[in-house]
Amino acid sequence: MFKTISVIGGDLRQITLARMLLDDGYDVIIYGFTKDIQTDGIPSADTIRRALSSDIIILPVPVTFDNRTINMPFCDTELSIEDITDNINPLSLVFGGRISEYISARLTARGIMHRDYMKRDELAIRNAVPTAEGAIEIAISETPITIHGSKCLVLGYGKVGKILAHSLDGLGAETYVEARKYADLALIEGHGCIPLTMNETKANIDRFDIIFNTIPALVLDENILKNVRPDTLIIDLASKPGGVDFQTAKELGLRVIWALSIPGRTAPVTAGIIIKDTITNILSELEV
Amino acid sequence: MFKTISVIGGDLRQITLARMLLDDGYDVIIYGFTKDIQTDGIPSADTIRRALSSDIIILPVPVTFDNRTINMPFCDTELSIEDITDNINPLSLVFGGRISEYISARLTARGIMHRDYMKRDELAIRNAVPTAEGAIEIAISETPITIHGSKCLVLGYGKVGKILAHSLDGLGAETYVEARKYADLALIEGHGCIPLTMNETKANIDRFDIIFNTIPALVLDENILKNVRPDTLIIDLASKPGGVDFQTAKELGLRVIWALSIPGRTAPVTAGIIIKDTITNILSELEV
Amino acid sequence: MFKTISVIGGDLRQITLARMLLDDGYDVIIYGFTKDIQTDGIPSADTIRRALSSDIIILPVPVTFDNRTINMPFCDTELSIEDITDNINPLSLVFGGRISEYISARLTARGIMHRDYMKRDELAIRNAVPTAEGAIEIAISETPITIHGSKCLVLGYGKVGKILAHSLDGLGAETYVEARKYADLALIEGHGCIPLTMNETKANIDRFDIIFNTIPALVLDENILKNVRPDTLIIDLASKPGGVDFQTAKELGLRVIWALSIPGRTAPVTAGIIIKDTITNILSELEV
Amino acid sequence: MFKTISVIGGDLRQITLARMLLDDGYDVIIYGFTKDIQTDGIPSADTIRRALSSDIIILPVPVTFDNRTINMPFCDTELSIEDITDNINPLSLVFGGRISEYISARLTARGIMHRDYMKRDELAIRNAVPTAEGAIEIAISETPITIHGSKCLVLGYGKVGKILAHSLDGLGAETYVEARKYADLALIEGHGCIPLTMNETKANIDRFDIIFNTIPALVLDENILKNVRPDTLIIDLASKPGGVDFQTAKELGLRVIWALSIPGRTAPVTAGIIIKDTITNILSELEV
Repeated sequence: MFKTISVIGGDLRQITLARMLLDDGYDVIIYGFTKDIQTDGIPSADTIRRALSSDIIILPVPVTFDNRTINMPFCDTELSIEDITDNINPLSLVFGGRISEYISARLTARGIMHRDYMKRDELAIRNAVPTAEGAIEIAISETPITIHGSKCLVLGYGKVGKILAHSLDGLGAETYVEARKYADLALIEGHGCIPLTMNETKANIDRFDIIFNTIPALVLDENILKNVRPDTLIIDLASKPGGVDFQTAKELGLRVIWALSIPGRTAPVTAGIIIKDTITNILSELEV
Repeated sequence: MFKTISVIGGDLRQITLARMLLDDGYDVIIYGFTKDIQTDGIPSADTIRRALSSDIIILPVPVTFDNRTINMPFCDTELSIEDITDNINPLSLVFGGRISEYISARLTARGIMHRDYMKRDELAIRNAVPTAEGAIEIAISETPITIHGSKCLVLGYGKVGKILAHSLDGLGAETYVEARKYADLALIEGHGCIPLTMNETKANIDRFDIIFNTIPALVLDENILKNVRPDTLIIDLASKPGGVDFQTAKELGLRVIWALSIPGRTAPVTAGIIIKDTITNILSELEV
Repeated sequence: MFKTISVIGGDLRQITLARMLLDDGYDVIIYGFTKDIQTDGIPSADTIRRALSSDIIILPVPVTFDNRTINMPFCDTELSIEDITDNINPLSLVFGGRISEYISARLTARGIMHRDYMKRDELAIRNAVPTAEGAIEIAISETPITIHGSKCLVLGYGKVGKILAHSLDGLGAETYVEARKYADLALIEGHGCIPLTMNETKANIDRFDIIFNTIPALVLDENILKNVRPDTLIIDLASKPGGVDFQTAKELGLRVIWALSIPGRTAPVTAGIIIKDTITNILSELEV
Repeated sequence: MFKTISVIGGDLRQITLARMLLDDGYDVIIYGFTKDIQTDGIPSADTIRRALSSDIIILPVPVTFDNRTINMPFCDTELSIEDITDNINPLSLVFGGRISEYISARLTARGIMHRDYMKRDELAIRNAVPTAEGAIEIAISETPITIHGSKCLVLGYGKVGKILAHSLDGLGAETYVEARKYADLALIEGHGCIPLTMNETKANIDRFDIIFNTIPALVLDENILKNVRPDTLIIDLASKPGGVDFQTAKELGLRVIWALSIPGRTAPVTAGIIIKDTITNILSELEV
């Protein structure tokens, strides 16, 4: 029943997923790619009306930056959120990345089923791979030392922490990982890294060459920062407020790099594949 | 307040933990080690009465095999469960491994606080390391091929699965891991192994040289077993009922090794250290 | 021109290579496998005369143990070296493992081309994989600790040292490697292990839980052994005289395991594949 | 006898080594660092005459770019080669990186002992680590995919190839390595990568996402390049003429990045440590 798919807006990630869905045999059309991006071989919808009539509508990540217009960096014209929500085929299934409450409310009001693929665990975990590689790229280019042989600290052993620690270990760093739960500390050791409690981390904070934060809470506060060595590089991978007291870090002359949304920037094709697989998983769970 | 510790019964694991607690400055005595084991330097209680008067009583793993006597393989005399439970200092804190319901009930009746260290997550995860090494030892000795370059399947990505897959990958096996959740499948891939759903596993079951089961449920049933190659080795690491239909496997001429309680057998000193650390964690949580 | 192959004597390694050569399309016959080994599907020569008439004759490893008879553990009857060397088709090409001087002289006298596959570098390197796994099996079963987290020393960074160090690192050991050349020390560090000069090794010899020797010379002499801890396990993988002063080790109460010819014992099928590939390489170099 | 050291010219690498030699207790002075670089705590020679009177003179890498002046990017004034060679203390020991024939001849004429630290094997091997990381940085930033899961080809298994392959494997790439010798192919497999002969490489050249060349000879010629996919990134790490037919690659629209002298650019502190250790090794061999 669900056969036609429209991919509206976004960047190389969305073009990648459009191409893969096409390869899977779906009837795909794209909308919102009129300049500066290669779309050869993928059919384009000439009108937004046509694009909105498909069985499945895939919106970009994020769906909107300004909560007013759809995120369409490769398009000359604008499209408002309402242009989409109000004209979409009510029987369609809508996918989007970080769907705002406003958008969700408007879709719900019209009874349109929608899913946020950015909320899925498997997407977050797979995105941890490009995130870790982006962090490694920064570490290589922004320090005068090699990762191999350096003392690296990873704060947090969630999705990104697990993958980043594994990669740093694979590159030969002396890899320390901070975690709270005893069970996580045990797993860190079992996976070949050195586990640290928060107290141990604090007591040794001047020993690290590079500190990667993955915890979305103020971990590196004034108390800890004042003991960080001036030649240590801090890379903050945590979203939202970030995990570093930037003001204090600045006053102390510490170097902090806040690296956000790495997957889309450093590996858009891989990120597109991940979104595509996630949407496929959701479709298979919905049995549509 | 808690200063004196008695370690009663068990094997080299308990001697190891007694020695380490002694090194930590505790006042330790042991009971139940009268033959065939080196205990030099560790004070011995001459009577069970003396042993039961300590602040902390550490019982072995398992506390009992027969639900009648205490597990004391290195002792000439027997001690009944009641000898312990009925005479223990009521203010003491009791630790044990796989405390049976009967023992727990008797201790509770007397108002004695007790903790089963085998139920702790961090113990289970750390025990996964010796379990994985024991499984690897079996795989090396029981197959005519090297693990390096072989196709290995790990069923389940829990505690043991996570560590075993990492070790097999470290030895150069082509490592496949079966998991149910999309999030686990993503993590398996991120950690350098090849993720398989159960359906993919079934469809490819004749491709593996060694199959390790870690799932405590009947996974390898007749339907799957009949497609396993006759030269494949199956190593079942799952406790309780095990994960293999042994009867059918036997009829099909398949080689299955059911490997239980590996840590105590293959690495008793490491296993003792793990129990000791776990007890220390519990003590620190209880703030005693 | 070279089309018929006879595989004479040996064990599961030779049966494995016979089977693989058969699969490659060669006309293979075996001789010397009359009991206790499965040869189903491989044609058998009824007489040694028939076996000796092939274009290629493959003898086992070693060709002989006693320099009198051919190594044929799975055969009821004996065959003398001369039975082979004097009756072989003079136009044939002979392969063998550790061909003795006597055998080589007799073949040369008759103008018969022969090659010792055990002398090939690629065989020695590939055999390092089963050798390393056999050493790991011993280390797991003969120590009460896990390899993971233990301090392991590898003496020598030749063929076996390179592979063994990589495997120990893959299992999470703290892996130290002794080498003489600055270049090797640099490579050891680059590959994630800890390089030690011989002087550093001597100064730290009491720190290791397991010591693996791969150097075929007396490295662990009295001077060093007297500083080894009594609970350290020494595994000697060096051939010929071995690298350990066994007499002194015994007097000091040290545990030494001398592990020889591991590939054929621990992974005969893999070892057979390696011999087969090596013979194929030689054939391709000879362009026959 | 050799106690005073002058470090003349160069960049952060030389400042790093000056600082480390100072920490080792040597009497160190620097010359040629008058701007844009932090040298705090390191004594500076006010005149070149003073700098040239030390027991050991350490020149930068390369000693000269133009074969006329000394390489001093952080100095306002120029120093000619002859300023150095003709005024150096004839009893001193001179170190330099890529000492040109002209410089070597002039030093020899005055009987001055000199050593080129860039010619040492251990330096080349240790430099392979920053070179590999620089290559990985390029691969992450210049491709829209992750290294993890990508198909990477490393041409050559010498110093850089050995380390780079290990790092790519550590990051989860499907790592193929081309080598000529059977022994190297065996080692590649033993270390967990996939070995390819040159013929196999040619036949599969369209399968790789990233190709790293480490061979200093024209490997990627027209014949091979014409089969490379247009989305493949080629990173050439080979010095001298490079290993890629750049003209043809350009005509075919292929992306080639020629990455030279990576250690000094991507990890100057690590590179300085490596030079320092190499000089220390040479001094210890000379027993001075």
